Amino acid sequence: MQHVNERIARLRSSMNLNKIDAIIIPSNDPHQSEYVSDNWKARAYFSGFNGSAGTLVIDSKLAALWTDSRYFLQFEEECRENEVELYKQSIPHAPEHVEWTISRMHSHSRLGIDFRLFSAEQVHALNLLTEPKKIEIVDASAVVDESWQNKPLPIFEPIIDYKTEFSGASRKQKIEIIHEMLHQNLSDYTLVSNLDDIAWLLNIRSNDADFTPLVTAYLIVGKESTILFLHENRVSEELLTEFNKNKIEVRGYDEIEKSIGKLSQVGIFEIDPSSLNYACFKSIQGKMNLNKSIVTDLKSIKNTTEIEHEKQAMLKDGVALTQFLMWFESYIPTHTISEYDLGKKLESFRMKQEYYQGESFAAIVGYKGNGAIIHYTAPENGSATISNDGILLIDSGAQYLNGTTDITRTFWLGGKPSNKIKASYTAVLKGFIDLQMLKFPVGTKGMQLDAFARQHLWAIGKDYGHGTGHGIGQYGMVHEPGQGFATTSATKRGSAPHLPNQFTTIEPGHYVEGEFGIRIENVVLSKLEENNFISFEALTLCPIETTLINLNELTTDQINWINAYHIKVKNTLFPLLSKEEKSWLKEKCQSI
Amino acid sequence: MQHVNERIARLRSSMNLNKIDAIIIPSNDPHQSEYVSDNWKARAYFSGFNGSAGTLVIDSKLAALWTDSRYFLQFEEECRENEVELYKQSIPHAPEHVEWTISRMHSHSRLGIDFRLFSAEQVHALNLLTEPKKIEIVDASAVVDESWQNKPLPIFEPIIDYKTEFSGASRKQKIEIIHEMLHQNLSDYTLVSNLDDIAWLLNIRSNDADFTPLVTAYLIVGKESTILFLHENRVSEELLTEFNKNKIEVRGYDEIEKSIGKLSQVGIFEIDPSSLNYACFKSIQGKMNLNKSIVTDLKSIKNTTEIEHEKQAMLKDGVALTQFLMWFESYIPTHTISEYDLGKKLESFRMKQEYYQGESFAAIVGYKGNGAIIHYTAPENGSATISNDGILLIDSGAQYLNGTTDITRTFWLGGKPSNKIKASYTAVLKGFIDLQMLKFPVGTKGMQLDAFARQHLWAIGKDYGHGTGHGIGQYGMVHEPGQGFATTSATKRGSAPHLPNQFTTIEPGHYVEGEFGIRIENVVLSKLEENNFISFEALTLCPIETTLINLNELTTDQINWINAYHIKVKNTLFPLLSKEEKSWLKEKCQSI
Repeated sequence: MQHVNERIARLRSSMNLNKIDAIIIPSNDPHQSEYVSDNWKARAYFSGFNGSAGTLVIDSKLAALWTDSRYFLQFEEECRENEVELYKQSIPHAPEHVEWTISRMHSHSRLGIDFRLFSAEQVHALNLLTEPKKIEIVDASAVVDESWQNKPLPIFEPIIDYKTEFSGASRKQKIEIIHEMLHQNLSDYTLVSNLDDIAWLLNIRSNDADFTPLVTAYLIVGKESTILFLHENRVSEELLTEFNKNKIEVRGYDEIEKSIGKLSQVGIFEIDPSSLNYACFKSIQGKMNLNKSIVTDLKSIKNTTEIEHEKQAMLKDGVALTQFLMWFESYIPTHTISEYDLGKKLESFRMKQEYYQGESFAAIVGYKGNGAIIHYTAPENGSATISNDGILLIDSGAQYLNGTTDITRTFWLGGKPSNKIKASYTAVLKGFIDLQMLKFPVGTKGMQLDAFARQHLWAIGKDYGHGTGHGIGQYGMVHEPGQGFATTSATKRGSAPHLPNQFTTIEPGHYVEGEFGIRIENVVLSKLEENNFISFEALTLCPIETTLINLNELTTDQINWINAYHIKVKNTLFPLLSKEEKSWLKEKCQSI
Repeated sequence: MQHVNERIARLRSSMNLNKIDAIIIPSNDPHQSEYVSDNWKARAYFSGFNGSAGTLVIDSKLAALWTDSRYFLQFEEECRENEVELYKQSIPHAPEHVEWTISRMHSHSRLGIDFRLFSAEQVHALNLLTEPKKIEIVDASAVVDESWQNKPLPIFEPIIDYKTEFSGASRKQKIEIIHEMLHQNLSDYTLVSNLDDIAWLLNIRSNDADFTPLVTAYLIVGKESTILFLHENRVSEELLTEFNKNKIEVRGYDEIEKSIGKLSQVGIFEIDPSSLNYACFKSIQGKMNLNKSIVTDLKSIKNTTEIEHEKQAMLKDGVALTQFLMWFESYIPTHTISEYDLGKKLESFRMKQEYYQGESFAAIVGYKGNGAIIHYTAPENGSATISNDGILLIDSGAQYLNGTTDITRTFWLGGKPSNKIKASYTAVLKGFIDLQMLKFPVGTKGMQLDAFARQHLWAIGKDYGHGTGHGIGQYGMVHEPGQGFATTSATKRGSAPHLPNQFTTIEPGHYVEGEFGIRIENVVLSKLEENNFISFEALTLCPIETTLINLNELTTDQINWINAYHIKVKNTLFPLLSKEEKSWLKEKCQSI
């Protein structure tokens, strides 16, 4: 394999030819996807760093990789033999590198970015910062592409037609809603670039990136026709016939900019500048209406079919978890098992369930101190050995054809838990319950609610360094953009309103480096109550560890909540369990 | 008085001459002040509407006044005989008029704004919205000024030297901190345009607008010198000598743009684009560093002298309130009094206190249904008559030479309170207490904390339509920009971090139109606790109405909080009270 330094040298010489003084290479693809396919991993190629988050900045003197504390160790391992230097972000995903990059640049110099990888809003923010120095922002997509030797070709699987039986609404019905909104907003076209929005709107699924059943595409919905931009040979004759019925035309993926250019000369485009990439944005020739994505909002509100299927998926997941936990409880007193193998074992139980498609993200199985590493993935070789002692965190999820799951439980495997662990576990649990019990007005933002899950940790001088929850799709993205719970409104998880019939996770935690990690997570459904208020219903069906609770610290309301939840878990799963499984679950769901 | 329609006609003809197709006239002054002096009230002049919030948009066809529900009634009264039409904002201060204005405009037309009245950030946001239609944004300051016949001249009182005895830090010390920050940020100058920042930094006060002891000015702090831009003849010889000692040069108020232009050719300016007006911003010729205002942040963190003086001011206010409430309680069983006169009576008690300078805002005395009008001001003639029956809300505050106060209490005057009122009062009180009891990490944002004051109202399907609190100055602005508690991060009250040694109000409420208003408000001091956490200490000293509490709905912690607060009120005020007053206060501070 070619050395990273040679790749950087080639990039620099291309930058030189193109009079680019500095270049910023982010980790995303043109669709702001969470999981990107290999042909968009330029940042990894030019830095040698394979972590999922990070931004590379290269100028004539320095190659700087900006990432956050989750990846410092991985960086040191992967980049010790190349010239890339680590720049530590204090906040994950914060654009701290931008001001730093600009501060290093001279007046009237040129900053290169791949226009496909930055949203229109990001470029506008860049403009504000580069204006004082009169720095020009130029498209570096060709510079990156031509310096990337043996760039992987995109690989695509067939596209499946996601039937109305699962989606609850036909693509025709969904497109009609878009037509109405276009009419209301006096727009002629809306341009959709988020893959989860396209998959939802057209009822299509595939498998283009890890863990997400999505299709790499762009979509233009106009009053008269719908145009889907796809890589070639992905649509079966059958699906094409369906598309034709609904006036959905298929064009080549690379034709998107040209098509935008033509159509925008005659009609008004409605776009979301926070998600649409700048290459597409720049192609718009005429008037635009800037709006938040219609589709993201529509998709976040699930219909009754979607809710019913998600509940069915939760049922399957609950059965698999029951079987797995029962097996584990009988196995661990007399055996040991590696974290990696335990993750695989869990998967083996889920695989037995109907409609199972795969994991919804890389399972986190963190024993003792490893549980404190928030985005830990147990390596295939050399992961920690679990025995019947101490604490274990398992955060995992599945894709079923009818729903997506995500659950975390923290278990006590044996020995006497310390007061410190019990105090933290109890505080996490109280927050987990309080947020699920909260009633609040429709439209309340995630940032307003997040701290209800933290307050009991705060009371004992503790906290956790991640958001409290995220939207989740129905056979879609496990981290579906939209509503959630976060400490900042810079992300939609903090700033988007909570509305009835959304799926959201609630997952507070607490982490002590080298000692333990605690996290408890349910998926909840938001339900409309009187006076336009919302309450949550837990969809996840799995007992909660009670060994670690300091009972005297729970309020009566909190105790009642746990007991009611356990009764629900038991009653809902019982019809699907064997006698032995029932007996195990009954024990786990006892009143406290 | 000339008819408003004639004023608009004159403005339109000037717009015509200057090829301006639409003009936006906001309510603020060039310093983003809360209370503006008469020479900046263009919006009132051209619309006839005198409410404190609103934006006027005029184009060739329409004159539209955008304001929120607090002012609909006042608009109808004041504008019924002119052509101005009311456009209802759904959210106070939201820039809903901007997109509306742009949607009415043609491509390549010209939008006029007074560059002095819009921040650099606001103009950048405008640019993003006008770009698709290629609308040009032009300065309309001359058009507004020349169409404004008999525009009032600014009137200024002398400037006082606010002694270190009160401020706790000399202007020299404060300027040195700015020098250090300039050094750190590689800047040569910082430009300060907020009047409260200037008053704090230079230890000066005056009386240029209602309720605020501020001085209309601009300030440039450079490494070598400090330049204060003032209207003429306001500085005494004595103060000028002090200024000279600290290398503070005084120039004319109108020289600011020219001076910025010159200095910025040789040095880097550090500015806050969210507060600096665009006229100043545009004058900068060279490099800038964009930052949040250093001074606003510094000012929000009070030193020990400021804290001690604020406590002294609270003591004076507590004595005045005790005397007022004792008088009122003996008076009302056998008399009636108008809301307006009761406000004056309260003022008369405060006036007797040392250092009293005036009210810190127009007192809100709202009896029964009037209490539900959030920004109610009892008119001098015809305000409601209060008798010994029902509910009364009083929100008032004072400026003392050593501190600023702001307090709300809700009283029950007689008769049997309804269950509805008691339920609401109890829920408001529980939120008021919970937020004051909360412990949270340094740096937590107001939007994360706000809902702790709402949760008990939410639990009974109720809410209130304002933020939960704001920063407060020390002989400064009663609504000091910076930290606070709000439902949105669009304002600093929602987005600024809470830090130790700040003064903030906590003031949840509940309002039922035509029936009653409930609000309870304390000023609190944020205190540093272990592990970098913050707790609040109540500074306000005044008993809380207990008649309206449903005791069985309070937790033990909440009851303990009230009893401890009342003991503190009693013990702190006792040394300053007469025997009769002590006995009255003791009764009010009894344990519940």
